[in-house]
Amino acid sequence: MKNFKTLQWIGDINGFLKLTDQRKLPEEFTEIECKTVQQLYDAIKTLAVRGAPAIGVAAGFGICLAAQESKNSTAADSVKNIRKKADYLAQSRPTAVNLFWALERMKKTADKFITENPNAETNDLRKSLLAEAQKIYDEDVEMCHNIGINGEKFVPAGGAVLTHCNAGALATAGDGTALAPIFEAQKNSKKFKVYADETRPLLQGARLTAWELAQAGIDVTLICDNMAGTLMKQGKINAIFTGADRIAANGDAANKIGTYPLSILAKAHNIPFYIAAPSSTFDLKLKNGDSIPIEQRPPQEVTMIKNIPIAPDRIKVYNPAFDVTPAENITAIITEKGVITQPNAEKIKKIFTQA
Amino acid sequence: MKNFKTLQWIGDINGFLKLTDQRKLPEEFTEIECKTVQQLYDAIKTLAVRGAPAIGVAAGFGICLAAQESKNSTAADSVKNIRKKADYLAQSRPTAVNLFWALERMKKTADKFITENPNAETNDLRKSLLAEAQKIYDEDVEMCHNIGINGEKFVPAGGAVLTHCNAGALATAGDGTALAPIFEAQKNSKKFKVYADETRPLLQGARLTAWELAQAGIDVTLICDNMAGTLMKQGKINAIFTGADRIAANGDAANKIGTYPLSILAKAHNIPFYIAAPSSTFDLKLKNGDSIPIEQRPPQEVTMIKNIPIAPDRIKVYNPAFDVTPAENITAIITEKGVITQPNAEKIKKIFTQA
Repeated sequence: MKNFKTLQWIGDINGFLKLTDQRKLPEEFTEIECKTVQQLYDAIKTLAVRGAPAIGVAAGFGICLAAQESKNSTAADSVKNIRKKADYLAQSRPTAVNLFWALERMKKTADKFITENPNAETNDLRKSLLAEAQKIYDEDVEMCHNIGINGEKFVPAGGAVLTHCNAGALATAGDGTALAPIFEAQKNSKKFKVYADETRPLLQGARLTAWELAQAGIDVTLICDNMAGTLMKQGKINAIFTGADRIAANGDAANKIGTYPLSILAKAHNIPFYIAAPSSTFDLKLKNGDSIPIEQRPPQEVTMIKNIPIAPDRIKVYNPAFDVTPAENITAIITEKGVITQPNAEKIKKIFTQA
Repeated sequence: MKNFKTLQWIGDINGFLKLTDQRKLPEEFTEIECKTVQQLYDAIKTLAVRGAPAIGVAAGFGICLAAQESKNSTAADSVKNIRKKADYLAQSRPTAVNLFWALERMKKTADKFITENPNAETNDLRKSLLAEAQKIYDEDVEMCHNIGINGEKFVPAGGAVLTHCNAGALATAGDGTALAPIFEAQKNSKKFKVYADETRPLLQGARLTAWELAQAGIDVTLICDNMAGTLMKQGKINAIFTGADRIAANGDAANKIGTYPLSILAKAHNIPFYIAAPSSTFDLKLKNGDSIPIEQRPPQEVTMIKNIPIAPDRIKVYNPAFDVTPAENITAIITEKGVITQPNAEKIKKIFTQA
C-alpha cells in the first residue's frame, strides 16, 4: 500500500533519522536527514514530521541522536545528558501525548540499562536505545495493522467515509490510524468513497490525505472543511473516521482543530463518528479533556499560504491547533487492542487492564 | 463608516459602472470600469462584485449598459434587445435571487415606459432606466441602514459576534446586511468583539470582512472556519450574524457554504443565529429551501490559492458555493421591514403583506 517511508533510521548507532518532508508534499517528495537533536526538534516543531504516532516514533530515535551527542565514555554519565535532551524534545509540541510517552519509555530503557550494567560504556547504551527505538517503530507498524483489522467493519460498503486532517500512513510508521481501516477495506475489495476535509490552516487533508489516498488508488474527493455539513445533510456521508492526539481517561479526545464540530454535525445527522488511535494516545492521568493542553500556533499559518498573504496585514488571529471532542460524541474508539464503543472511563480502564 | 464605494454609476445615460475589484482585496484597492454588458457579466461571474444585494444593484445598472448597446432609435424596438441582455446577465450566477429580482424590476420599468410612451426614442428609455437603477441603489443604501437599526439590539454588549463570508459594505451599496447591526452598535459606542470566519474557498471573510471591519476600527479576530465550534464550546461567541443569498417562503435560507454547519453548532451551544437580508432576498415562489439552486464552482477554487497549487494534481473536488440553513435553525431574520423571529411561512407572508 505505502510506497514511501514516513521515517526510518539509517545505519547503526552512528546513523541518522531520515524523514519524508511533509511540509513540501504534494508538490515535492523530498526526504530530510536529522543528524542532531536540534534538527529533529525543528522537524517536529515545523511539521516536517507530524501525526501523533509518527511524532512518538521520531522522538524514540531522537533519544538515539541524544546518545550520539553525549560525549561521556560511561553510560551512567551519558544518561544525564540524554535526559536533558529528552526534556528539550518534549517541548517541541505540547498536545500529542505519544511524544511524551515515547520519551518516557526511552528514558526508562536508559535507566534500566545502567541499573543492570552500571559499568557499561556509552556505546553499549546507544545499542540498547537504538534497539528500543526500533521496537517502538515496529510496534507502530503492527499497531496500524491491528487498528485496520479492528476498524474495517465500520467502513460502509457502497457508502462514503469522511476524514479530517491526516491520520494516514504519513502520520505513522505504518499504514495510519484513521486511514488504516480504509486501506484494510480496500484490500478486502470493498467499494466506497472517501471525502477528505482540506483541514485549514495547514491543509494536511488537501496536501497529505488526498495525496496518500489517490496514490493508493482510493476514490477520494477533496472538500473544504465547511462543506462537510452540507454533505451530511444530503445523506452522502455514512461514517466519519479521525485520529487523535491525546485521549483522556474518560474518552474525551483531542484531535486536529475542526474535529469537534464534525462530531456535533455527526450527532445531528445520526452518522457514526469513529476515532482510531493507538493505546499510546491515551493519557490516563487526565480525568477528562478539559486538562489537555491545546497548542496555539503562529497567526501566519492562517494569514499566509505558502508565504503569500491572504488576509490584511497585522490582523488579529486565533489559531488553536487542536480541539477536544467529548466522549459522548464518539461512537467508538478503535485501538490496536480492540474497539471501545460508547467510550467511558470504566471501559477504557478495562481495555488497559486486559493488556 | 464606509470610506470606499462598492459600486457607482459614473456620468449620465452614456456613463459606466465603476466597481471596487473585490478579487484583489485586501492587497490592492483597485476599481474597474464596466462599459459593456459582457464586462459586467464577467465581473459578476468572477466575483469582482459579489454579495447578493450588490449583485442586484449592479444588475440594475447592467440594464442601463444594455440600453446603451441597443442601437435602435425607437424605445419599443430597443426593449427586445434589452430583454435578451437581461436574460444573459441572469445566467452570471444562479443562487442569489436579488439578481433576478433587479433584472425583473428593470424589465418591468422598460415595459411600463413603452406602454406609456409608445413613440418615445431609445434615449428617453435610457433615462427612465438609469433613474430606476439609481433608485435600486438608493433603496439598497436605505435598506442597509434600516437593517442596522433593526438588528442592533442583537449585538451583545461586552460579548462577541461571529460572522461568516462577507455580508458587509462590500456586499451592498450601503453598509451591509449582517454587518449593518455591527456598524450601528459601534455608532452607539457599544463594546464588543467580532470573530470573522475566513470562509474557504474564496476567503471572503479573511480578505473582505476582516479588512472592512479593521478599517472601521472594530475589534476583529480572524479564524479558520473549522475553529468556530471550539470558540462556541468555550462560551466565547454570543451571537452569529450572516447574510443570505435566497430565502424561501418558509424561511429556509441559502447562504455561503459553511453557514448551515454554523447553524447546527449554534443550536448545540444555545447561541442565537441571525440572518440579515433585505426583502429582495426572499423568493416566495419557492415553498422551501430544497428547490433553491446551488451553484457549483470550479475545482481550482479549492485546489489553488492565488494560482498556487495546494492539493494534488487532478484530485476530485466538490465545491458548492452555498448551503441551505433550515428555518428552524434561525433565531430571527432581520430585514429592512422588521425582524421575523422564529421565521415560518405565515410570519414571512405577513411582513410582505404589511409592506
